[in-house]
Amino acid sequence: MSGNRFGTLFQYQTWGESHGPALGVVVDGVPPRIPLCEEDIQVFLDKRKPGQSKFTTQRHEEDKVRILSGVFEGQTTGTPISLMIENTDQKSKDYGDIKDKYRPGHADFTYDAKYGIRDYRGGGRSSARETAGRVAAGAIARKVLREAFGDRLFIRAAVVQLGGRYINKDSWDWACVDQNPFFCPDSGVVEEWEEYLATIRKEGSSVGAIVECHASGIPAGLGAPVYDKLDADLAKAMMSINAVKSVGIGDGAYVAELRGEQNADPIRIGEDGLPVFLSNHAGGILGGISTGQDIVVRVAFKPTSSLLIPVPTIDKFGQETDIVTKGRHDPCVGLRGAPVVEAMMACVLLDHWLRHKAQCL
Amino acid sequence: MSGNRFGTLFQYQTWGESHGPALGVVVDGVPPRIPLCEEDIQVFLDKRKPGQSKFTTQRHEEDKVRILSGVFEGQTTGTPISLMIENTDQKSKDYGDIKDKYRPGHADFTYDAKYGIRDYRGGGRSSARETAGRVAAGAIARKVLREAFGDRLFIRAAVVQLGGRYINKDSWDWACVDQNPFFCPDSGVVEEWEEYLATIRKEGSSVGAIVECHASGIPAGLGAPVYDKLDADLAKAMMSINAVKSVGIGDGAYVAELRGEQNADPIRIGEDGLPVFLSNHAGGILGGISTGQDIVVRVAFKPTSSLLIPVPTIDKFGQETDIVTKGRHDPCVGLRGAPVVEAMMACVLLDHWLRHKAQCL
Amino acid sequence: MSGNRFGTLFQYQTWGESHGPALGVVVDGVPPRIPLCEEDIQVFLDKRKPGQSKFTTQRHEEDKVRILSGVFEGQTTGTPISLMIENTDQKSKDYGDIKDKYRPGHADFTYDAKYGIRDYRGGGRSSARETAGRVAAGAIARKVLREAFGDRLFIRAAVVQLGGRYINKDSWDWACVDQNPFFCPDSGVVEEWEEYLATIRKEGSSVGAIVECHASGIPAGLGAPVYDKLDADLAKAMMSINAVKSVGIGDGAYVAELRGEQNADPIRIGEDGLPVFLSNHAGGILGGISTGQDIVVRVAFKPTSSLLIPVPTIDKFGQETDIVTKGRHDPCVGLRGAPVVEAMMACVLLDHWLRHKAQCL
Amino acid sequence: MSGNRFGTLFQYQTWGESHGPALGVVVDGVPPRIPLCEEDIQVFLDKRKPGQSKFTTQRHEEDKVRILSGVFEGQTTGTPISLMIENTDQKSKDYGDIKDKYRPGHADFTYDAKYGIRDYRGGGRSSARETAGRVAAGAIARKVLREAFGDRLFIRAAVVQLGGRYINKDSWDWACVDQNPFFCPDSGVVEEWEEYLATIRKEGSSVGAIVECHASGIPAGLGAPVYDKLDADLAKAMMSINAVKSVGIGDGAYVAELRGEQNADPIRIGEDGLPVFLSNHAGGILGGISTGQDIVVRVAFKPTSSLLIPVPTIDKFGQETDIVTKGRHDPCVGLRGAPVVEAMMACVLLDHWLRHKAQCL
Repeated sequence: MSGNRFGTLFQYQTWGESHGPALGVVVDGVPPRIPLCEEDIQVFLDKRKPGQSKFTTQRHEEDKVRILSGVFEGQTTGTPISLMIENTDQKSKDYGDIKDKYRPGHADFTYDAKYGIRDYRGGGRSSARETAGRVAAGAIARKVLREAFGDRLFIRAAVVQLGGRYINKDSWDWACVDQNPFFCPDSGVVEEWEEYLATIRKEGSSVGAIVECHASGIPAGLGAPVYDKLDADLAKAMMSINAVKSVGIGDGAYVAELRGEQNADPIRIGEDGLPVFLSNHAGGILGGISTGQDIVVRVAFKPTSSLLIPVPTIDKFGQETDIVTKGRHDPCVGLRGAPVVEAMMACVLLDHWLRHKAQCL
Repeated sequence: MSGNRFGTLFQYQTWGESHGPALGVVVDGVPPRIPLCEEDIQVFLDKRKPGQSKFTTQRHEEDKVRILSGVFEGQTTGTPISLMIENTDQKSKDYGDIKDKYRPGHADFTYDAKYGIRDYRGGGRSSARETAGRVAAGAIARKVLREAFGDRLFIRAAVVQLGGRYINKDSWDWACVDQNPFFCPDSGVVEEWEEYLATIRKEGSSVGAIVECHASGIPAGLGAPVYDKLDADLAKAMMSINAVKSVGIGDGAYVAELRGEQNADPIRIGEDGLPVFLSNHAGGILGGISTGQDIVVRVAFKPTSSLLIPVPTIDKFGQETDIVTKGRHDPCVGLRGAPVVEAMMACVLLDHWLRHKAQCL
Repeated sequence: MSGNRFGTLFQYQTWGESHGPALGVVVDGVPPRIPLCEEDIQVFLDKRKPGQSKFTTQRHEEDKVRILSGVFEGQTTGTPISLMIENTDQKSKDYGDIKDKYRPGHADFTYDAKYGIRDYRGGGRSSARETAGRVAAGAIARKVLREAFGDRLFIRAAVVQLGGRYINKDSWDWACVDQNPFFCPDSGVVEEWEEYLATIRKEGSSVGAIVECHASGIPAGLGAPVYDKLDADLAKAMMSINAVKSVGIGDGAYVAELRGEQNADPIRIGEDGLPVFLSNHAGGILGGISTGQDIVVRVAFKPTSSLLIPVPTIDKFGQETDIVTKGRHDPCVGLRGAPVVEAMMACVLLDHWLRHKAQCL
Repeated sequence: MSGNRFGTLFQYQTWGESHGPALGVVVDGVPPRIPLCEEDIQVFLDKRKPGQSKFTTQRHEEDKVRILSGVFEGQTTGTPISLMIENTDQKSKDYGDIKDKYRPGHADFTYDAKYGIRDYRGGGRSSARETAGRVAAGAIARKVLREAFGDRLFIRAAVVQLGGRYINKDSWDWACVDQNPFFCPDSGVVEEWEEYLATIRKEGSSVGAIVECHASGIPAGLGAPVYDKLDADLAKAMMSINAVKSVGIGDGAYVAELRGEQNADPIRIGEDGLPVFLSNHAGGILGGISTGQDIVVRVAFKPTSSLLIPVPTIDKFGQETDIVTKGRHDPCVGLRGAPVVEAMMACVLLDHWLRHKAQCL
C-alpha cells in the first residue's frame, strides 16, 4: 500500500536507495519448479546497466545480483525469491548542492513535501537505480512465461524516437536493436542519432525518447474486465517507470483522429482455421482482454532534468537560487528505459496469466 | 482481483450488465459524517446520461440513483454505500446479429475467448453503461475532497480534440464547457464541430476524441513512490475507461521532443512566501507525488466500432461474415467520456489523500 | 480496506444495515459457466433465517434473494454477481432506548467511538443480519467447489456445546443436525437442550455455544505458507462472525496439554497406495496447507448481550443508566451461527483453491 | 497473495529459508521521521533468540540484524525498510533422514503436496526461523505506536500454561516474565516448571503451551467492521505463527459457558468523566473495534513434533517407515512463541491505527 510493490498474484517488492548499502527485490507468487539461476537474471541487468557507452551515465555499477532465497537445487520452490544487488560505487562525496536545493523536474521537492525528510544522496529512493529491481523481476517473469507459452513468446522493446529524431518504421529490424547503444531498430538512423546525442551531451543538455514494446505469442483471454484491464495495468506499470509521461496502447493517441471504420481491426479466418485480425490498431487488446495479436505499447520518457545548464529553483530554506547538476548523467534516460519497459511488460503479462489460470482454466 | 473494483482505501466495486435488471456500485472507505444525498450524485449522472443531444446514443436511460446503505440522517456512516440504478430501457429485442457475430473493436471476441460465455445483450458487462457507477463514485469522492480541501478544489474535464478538429488553447473557457454538447472549452469551434459531427453521424461513422482534465487545489505530497505513483494510478484509472487508448500527464508524449532545460519547470518563491512553479510541463506531478500545481491529464478515446458501415468479421461458429451495428449509438463516445474522466480523477485523488493521511499526517 | 470485503481471488463485498431498505453482497472472482440460480442460494439462506423456532429471534425476515448480475442463461459469466435481499420487516418503531444508550457487549459504544455517528436502528451495520450475505456467498462457493471436487465434497457444521451442556461425541450423527432447532448432532441430548434453552429464554437471559465444522473431500495442497496459512485464513473468517470469541483448528487449545508423540498424526500407506493419517489432531492442516484429511474448526460464540435483565451502562451524553433490551432476540445466537460457519468454511476453501490453481497447477 | 506478507497499510514481507544464506523482512508503510536504529530491533530479536537456556534449541544463531534501506540519519524516511539477518549457523550436514521422510506434525508432506519440491534443510521456509522477521517488524511497529500513544503503550506476553501445568492468575507479575526462561508471570511455579520441562526434554518428548498477550494504552476506535475486525485480524496474525492451533479473545472459548448477564461488561463513568468498563470478558474489543480497555489474546501452541521418540510415517517414495528427529530442538516451542505473539500484536495494532487515521481522523 506504500507503493513499493508491483502486482497481484505475481508480485514483487523493491527496496533500497541509490547510495545505500544495497538494493533489492523480493519476488513472490512464482510457480514452483521453474529452473532459475543468477545468470538468468544477470543477462537482463547487464542490458540495463549504465556506463556501457558514453550515452549513459558513467557510474560504474557492477550490478551483480545474488539469489538469497526461494531457489533450491536450481529450481524455484514457490516461496519468495529474494534478490540483492550491493551498491559498490557509492563514493563518499560532497552532496552539498543537492542536499539543500530542489532540482526542478526531480522528486526532491515532492519527497520533502510528503515525508518531511529526504535521502538526497543520488536521489535516494527516487533514483532510476530502483529499476534494476524491475529488470530482475522481469527476468523471472520471462522464465515463467516461457514455460507457459513456449518459444512463441517474444518480448522486445526499441527506441523509436530520440528527441526530435524518428526511425523509419519500414526499416524496423529487431536484430539491429542490440547492435547500437540506442536500442534503435533502424540501422539507417543510428549514425545520425549518435551525432545528435553527442551534441546534446556536449551542451550539457538532454532529450526525451519514445520506447515501443511488442509482446508476441500471448494467447487471447489475458486481462480482466473494467478496472484491471490488461491495458490499464500496462499503463500503470509503464507510467510508474521513472521519467515516463505518457503511455499508449496500439495506435495510442492517434486513434482520436481515426474514424470507426479505419480503427476497427477486421477479423477473418486464417488458413489454420483460427481467427486472424487484418490489422492491429488496437494493440492486441479489446475490452481489456488480449486478442492473441501482438500487444503493442508506446511509452514516452521526458528528458532528464539533471543538466549542466543552470535552472532557477529554490532551496529548502525558501531561498531562490539556481542549480547545475554536476556529475555522471544520462543525456537521454529513455535509452536505459527500453529494458525496463520490456521487464514491466513481462511482469504484467505473467500476473494476468496467473489470474486467468485462477479463474478461468 | 477480478478487476471490477477500484482503489485501495477509497474503493468501490461496480456490478451489472447493460441489459440486466439493474447496475450498481458499492463505495467503501468513505470517511464518516460527510453530508450526502441522492441529489449530490444525480447531478453528475445527468451530465453523463445519454440521449441529451443528437450526438450521443438515443437510449433513454433514466439513470435514477438510489442510496441503499451507508448514509444515516443525511450523513455518511463510514460503512459501505450501496448505490443502485435500475435499467428501465431494456427493450426485449432481437439481439440476433450480435448474439453470434463478433463486432470488431468490441470486447465480444475477447470475452468469449476468456470466459467461454458472454452476455451479448447490449455489450453485457463491457458496455459503457458501467461508467455510470464510476460517475456515482466520483460524485462521492468530490464531496469528501471538498470537505478536505475546501473551495479551492476544482476538477473539470473538456474535449480538446474531436476527430481531426482541435480547439484553440488560447480561447479556453471553462464556462463554455457546459454550454455545448461537446464539453468543448472553445466557443469559437463549437459550430464547426457540430457540422463535422453531424456529417460523421449521417455517414454512419464515428470519430475519436481527446479529453483533458485539470484538478486544482490539490496540495503537494499526494502520491506514493515507485509503483503507486499518482500518475501511475491516474494512468490506470483513465486507461480502464471504455475506448481509451492513451494517457498522458502534463505535456504527455510531447516531452519526448523537449530538451531538459525546456521541460524542467523552474521554481521561485511567490509573494506569499510559498513555492511557485513558472511552468507546468510536468502536469503537477514529480516523482509520482503532487507538486501543488494543477494536475493535468490527457486521455484519448478511440472511435466506437458500432457503425452503419459494414466491417468484415467472423461469427462464433468460425464463419466469415460482415457486421453492421444497428440501433442507438454514439458518433463520438469520447464526448460522454468527459464526466467519466473527471470522476476517475476525483476517485484517484481521494484514494491518495486517504493514503497520505494514513502514513504521513 | 474498510473491512467489508472477504477474500483475495474469490471475494465478496457485503453492504447494508439491519433496518435499511435492503442488504446485499457482490460476489466476484467466480469462475465462468457454473450453473447458478436463486434457489441454489435460497436454500442456505432459509437455514440461517430467524423465526424458525422459538429459540431464534422472532423477526420475520423473508430473506428472499435476487440475482441482479453476473448470471446469464443459468450460468455464471465470470463477472460480479450482485445479490440483494430486501428488508421487509423494518417496522417503523421507537428506537428510543438504544438510540442514546450503549448496550454492553454490543458495538454501540465502539461504533460511536470510531465514527462519531451510528445507525442505531437494529444494530445498523453491526447486526447479525449481515451474515445473510455471508451465507449467500457461501452457497455460491459450494457450487464452485462441487464442480472442482465432485461429490466427495462435504461441508457441515454442528453445535457441540450449548452453554454448559455438551454432546456425546460418540453419538455424532450428521443426519440429526437438520432434525432439531439446535443443529445438534447428538439426538440423545436434544430434549435436554430444549428444556435448558427454554428456561434461559424465559429468564430473559442467553447462553453461548460452540460450533464445530468439518470439511471433507478437500485435496492436499490448499493453503499458503506463513501469513495466509489455510488455518490463519479460517481463523480470521470465523472470528469475523458476530459474537465469535475463539477459533481452534483440530484439537485447538487442547494441544497445549498434549505431548509431541500424542499430537503428531502418524502416516501410513492405505490400501489404495495413498497416504493415510492414523489420527487427525491437526485438523487437516500442517504448515498452513491442507493434508487431504478432514478440515476441522471449532468456533465459540458468546451469549448475546440483548437481555431482559438490566445491565449497568452509560448513554452517549455520559450519564450512567441501566439498559434492558426489549424485542425479538435469540437466547443463543450461536445456533444461527452454524450455517454461517459452514459458509465461511466454503468461502475460505474456494479462495485458497483458486490461489492454488493460479500458482501451482 | 502468496502468503508471505502481513498487513494492509503497515505491511511487511518476509523471505528466506532456515538454512539459506540469509533471511529478511521488508517493512513498508512506516510513517516518516520515526527514530530507528538497529539496536531498537536487536533487543527484541535477542529475546526470541534460541540457545539461551537448555529449554530452547541449542542452535547458536547470532541473529544480527542489518538495516539496508529506509532509514536516513537515524530516522525512517517513509520508504521500505529492508532488514537482513545472515544465517551463520548453517553447518553443512547430512540431512539424509528428513530429506526423504515426512515428519508427522511438520509441513514436509504438505509442502511436497503443494509445490512438488521442498527445501528440506532445517524445514526450509516452514521453519520457525521465519519468526525472526516477525519480531523485527514488531519492533518497528512498537516504535511507531509509542510515537502515537506515548508511554501508556504496553504490549507484553506471558506463558500461562506449560503442558499440563498452569500459573496462578492471582500471582501474575509482569516483572517476573523476564526473569525466567519460560516467560512465566508467576514466580511461584517457575521451579516446578523447570523440573517438569527438564523431564520432558530428557524423555525426548515435548509439550504445548498457552501464551497470553495484553496490550494497554490503545484508544477506543481501532478496528473495522465485519471482515477486518480487530479480533479477526489478531486471530489471523496469531494463527499464522508456527505451531499455533487456537486463538481466543478475552475469555475466549469460555464464553460459551457464560450467560449473557455474566458476559456483558457493564459500563460506568469514571472519576475523570470517561467511560469505565467494570470487567473485561470481551478482551477489549466489541463489534471488531477496540473499547479502550486492555486487549487480551490467548494463543495455544502445539508440542513440536521433532522428537527422539520414533513416530510412524512414510517417505516420499511411498514406503512406510519411522522417523526420529535428531539434533537441536525445543521441548516447548511455545516458549519462544511469547516474543512472536507480542510482535504480531504490535503489528496488527499499528496496521489498524494507520487504517483508522486514514478514514476517521
